[in-house]
Amino acid sequence: MQLALDEARRARDLGEVPVGAVITDGEGRVIARAGNRTIAERDPSAHAEILAIRAAARLLDNERLVGCDLYVTLEPCAMCAAAISFARIARLCFGAADEKMGGVDHGGRFFSQPTCHHRPEVVSGPGAEASAGLLREFFSSRRS
Amino acid sequence: MQLALDEARRARDLGEVPVGAVITDGEGRVIARAGNRTIAERDPSAHAEILAIRAAARLLDNERLVGCDLYVTLEPCAMCAAAISFARIARLCFGAADEKMGGVDHGGRFFSQPTCHHRPEVVSGPGAEASAGLLREFFSSRRS
Repeated sequence: MQLALDEARRARDLGEVPVGAVITDGEGRVIARAGNRTIAERDPSAHAEILAIRAAARLLDNERLVGCDLYVTLEPCAMCAAAISFARIARLCFGAADEKMGGVDHGGRFFSQPTCHHRPEVVSGPGAEASAGLLREFFSSRRS
Repeated sequence: MQLALDEARRARDLGEVPVGAVITDGEGRVIARAGNRTIAERDPSAHAEILAIRAAARLLDNERLVGCDLYVTLEPCAMCAAAISFARIARLCFGAADEKMGGVDHGGRFFSQPTCHHRPEVVSGPGAEASAGLLREFFSSRRS
C-alpha cells in the first residue's frame, strides 16, 4: 500500500486526483503500478486501477490476472470494481472509503450483484488515513 | 446503430464477443467506432464502449464528451455504464438487453445510484434483434 500511496502522490503532483494502485502476482512481486491519469491521457477510463490492470495484462500477455492482488488507495468506483472482477483479481485491498463515488461498499455494490461473476476477497482500511489526507488536501487546495 | 452492428460483426470475425459501439458528436457526425477487443488487446477493459470513448476523447482532446451520443449493440455493463457517465455522454442508445452482465437495467443499475453524478438520456431497443442474434450465434458456435 506504501507504493500505491507513492503513486497517488505522483498523480497529485501532476494535478490529477491523488489515487494510486499496485498489482502483485501470486508470489507477491509488484508487476504493475499506476496513478490516476484521466486529465493527462484525456481518458475518462484512466483511473489508477484500470491503468494498472492494463499494464499487468500486457505484461502477462493475458487479459485474466489469475492469482494477482490489487492494492488501491481509494475504494474503487463501479467502473473499476467491474474491471477488477473481469480481470479475475484474487484479492482487492483498498484504503479510504469513497461515499461519493465508491462501487464496492457504496452505490451499486458491484461484487454483491448477480451480474458479478467473479468476486475478489476484499480487505479495506490499510493506508486509509494517509489516502484520505491526500484527497482532502487536494480538493481543499483546488477550491482555494 | 447499423455502424455499431458492423463493428459487432467485425469483432465476431476476430473471435471476440460481438459487441460494437459508435459515438456521434453534437451535429450527429460519427467521431469514433469500435468493437470489443478484450482478447486481441489483452485488456479486460477493452469493451467496445470504452474503446470508442477513449478514441473520441483523444480526437476531441478532452476527457469529457459533452453533447456526444453513444450507440452500442448491447446493454452496457457496470464498467461501461460508469465510463459513459464519467465521459458526460448526453444520450445512450443500446440494442439488446443483457440480463447476465448488464449494468443499466440490471445489476447495480449505475445510473440510478446516488454515486452516479451524470445520467445520460437512455434509449433501448434499436437493433436489439440483430444484436441478440449475433450474440446467440457466437455463443452457440463456441459451445459446439
